[in-house]
Amino acid sequence: MLNRVENIISRIQELASISETPGVTTRRYGTAAAIAAGDKVLHWMREAGLETRIDAIGNIRGRWPSEDPAARTLVIASHLDTVVNAGRWDGPLGVLAGLDILENLIRRKIRLPHHVELIAFCDEEGVRFHTTYLGSRVVAGSFDPETLQSRDEDGIMLAAAITAARGNPDNLQQEAIPADRWLGYFELHIEQGPILYERRIPVAAVKAIAGQIRGEVSFTGMAGHAGTVPMAMRHDALCGAAEFILAAEQEAAAGGGGFLATIGRLRISDSASNVIPGQVSCSIDIRSAHPDTLSAAHSRLKTLAETIATRRGLTAQWQVVQSSPPVACDGRMKDGLVQCIEKAGYEALELVSGAGHDAVPISAVAPVSMLFVRCYKGISHHPLENVEPADLAAALAIAEDFVIHITKG
Amino acid sequence: MLNRVENIISRIQELASISETPGVTTRRYGTAAAIAAGDKVLHWMREAGLETRIDAIGNIRGRWPSEDPAARTLVIASHLDTVVNAGRWDGPLGVLAGLDILENLIRRKIRLPHHVELIAFCDEEGVRFHTTYLGSRVVAGSFDPETLQSRDEDGIMLAAAITAARGNPDNLQQEAIPADRWLGYFELHIEQGPILYERRIPVAAVKAIAGQIRGEVSFTGMAGHAGTVPMAMRHDALCGAAEFILAAEQEAAAGGGGFLATIGRLRISDSASNVIPGQVSCSIDIRSAHPDTLSAAHSRLKTLAETIATRRGLTAQWQVVQSSPPVACDGRMKDGLVQCIEKAGYEALELVSGAGHDAVPISAVAPVSMLFVRCYKGISHHPLENVEPADLAAALAIAEDFVIHITKG
Repeated sequence: MLNRVENIISRIQELASISETPGVTTRRYGTAAAIAAGDKVLHWMREAGLETRIDAIGNIRGRWPSEDPAARTLVIASHLDTVVNAGRWDGPLGVLAGLDILENLIRRKIRLPHHVELIAFCDEEGVRFHTTYLGSRVVAGSFDPETLQSRDEDGIMLAAAITAARGNPDNLQQEAIPADRWLGYFELHIEQGPILYERRIPVAAVKAIAGQIRGEVSFTGMAGHAGTVPMAMRHDALCGAAEFILAAEQEAAAGGGGFLATIGRLRISDSASNVIPGQVSCSIDIRSAHPDTLSAAHSRLKTLAETIATRRGLTAQWQVVQSSPPVACDGRMKDGLVQCIEKAGYEALELVSGAGHDAVPISAVAPVSMLFVRCYKGISHHPLENVEPADLAAALAIAEDFVIHITKG
Repeated sequence: MLNRVENIISRIQELASISETPGVTTRRYGTAAAIAAGDKVLHWMREAGLETRIDAIGNIRGRWPSEDPAARTLVIASHLDTVVNAGRWDGPLGVLAGLDILENLIRRKIRLPHHVELIAFCDEEGVRFHTTYLGSRVVAGSFDPETLQSRDEDGIMLAAAITAARGNPDNLQQEAIPADRWLGYFELHIEQGPILYERRIPVAAVKAIAGQIRGEVSFTGMAGHAGTVPMAMRHDALCGAAEFILAAEQEAAAGGGGFLATIGRLRISDSASNVIPGQVSCSIDIRSAHPDTLSAAHSRLKTLAETIATRRGLTAQWQVVQSSPPVACDGRMKDGLVQCIEKAGYEALELVSGAGHDAVPISAVAPVSMLFVRCYKGISHHPLENVEPADLAAALAIAEDFVIHITKG
């Protein structure tokens, strides 16, 4: 196992060095770096004995067929694209761990009763075209052709970027795996959060991927001179926003982990140290694994903002910017992961993923499952992102057990 | 009186049209517009029969001597410089009302037992050189020669600007009125706050000019992913800042008007809607008419920031950026104003000025007094700044009564 872990880490390093900018890791969809990383993975897949191809959007796909042509397919996948100045593990880990497991099964001449397809998705982060899941949407058959008109910051259209990346925007529909051909979807990914790090556990099964409502709330009061308007005559928009920020924090904390609420941006219009803020707008990010909780939290926070505004003689405006429903992982697959984790001797936590993953679009057509691996301090999207070799070894053994188990079971 | 009010308003309009930028009113120290406005006032002072001169910093000074050469001097003053895109009343009102009163006394051949000097200060706002009270500091004898090295945004030194404005930076010390020659200082000014507007009273006596402590407080926690860090594991710097903002508001409100506290600026480092804020810095502006209250409020708010930070696992840094002590108006002069206000039939409010005025440096050498006039909705430093003719008439009558009374009393 030590050799296998070293091999994966060496490949992770090799991919990390393929970057748009030397010295850091940045691979946005369709860039020369992203294409080169894909070619590298394609080469490794071919060496492993998989039937490889680049599909019409640029996903790298390696098929390991079962002897039964009518068998269904287990997809093992993650993504090769990254954010700007990324870490090495977010995405490549799942692809290279999957590749290693298939290499090992082939080497050991173990045959599975189902087809297995390893997919390295070309775009999960969506940094270049401000879209997400381009690769997995194609595989799920839910790619929206209107997206082809999206342009990057240089004005290049997605359709042109697909062609430049040796794909074909006209053939995207043909790349989907039909719903009745799926056995299931499995992805190994770093947690991107601090729970495993704090609890000192190497892995966890994912039970759901949180839904998200992203909004913008603005409070309007009356600007004034900081030295001349008595406290009782003020309509301070920042004080209203501050009360809302604390109320949102308190509601989420009181919700017992049912939902998360975050205010990450805040802007005071025409701000100056000696001017009472007249208008303040801030973002609100609400996430929950449960659709009803998400919707109730959204209504509750909106009402709180309005109540606070009214009591202070302010007006509040609430705008929903983006909304995506929660996705539940498949119960049977999740239970299978839990069994493998316990068999390996670890406490089997079931986590909610607060970040989105390719499993979100895939869940529309297939049972999905994910295994989270502990990462250093929960840090991700940052060069400090790290996974300990011992954790990688544990995850690899559990994932391999799971792949054999789920395919046989 | 109606003629006199119309005359003042017509002069206010005439000065408002003398601007660095056509269509708005902007006259920063030493600009061609400021010099032209000074010349206009000098001309009116001369027409009124005053002994006029431009002093070494550019103040326009008009002396109306008493028959007794050994008599002391009552200074009536305000300023001619403005902020960028200013209103018409802040400054010119006090100069032109004072001029009108002297014109009337001279016309009526009323003699006073003391000298009167009308001064149109050249720089109160301090916009160009980021200094305040250049004109009145010269008259008070507290001009700091080091200030001559200050540069405006074009790199022009104050010393050069004084010369260009037909002054002489070497002669500033000779322009001071020695402490033993002052009878007192009187300024009529718009309130720049909403109290008179809300209470429907045209004028008020000023009892003090608030001292001010301006600080910067920053909260440092830990940035994190809005979707993956549980509420209980967060060290959200914005939530800490929000708690401080509300605590400061509550302390000031509970202080019964003893002090004002305002957070006007707030900045989240590397902010994004899906990132838990790791560092937030905000301004804090504390004002009070009482030195002990100001100092106690400062200590109390600093302690609150630290307590909030500690409880939340954040660190707080507190930095004092500027500090100026409160100035009390002269009790006898203030009582004189109160009597004149009551004689005119109005309720005599005694207000604290939250904004600074030329009376601040003058108070070091002379008893100071100010009469506030109601302005529309408390708006100042804005083209909407306005004073009703009826309020101007009331203020003019009260100020004239006061000038005769204080000089005789």
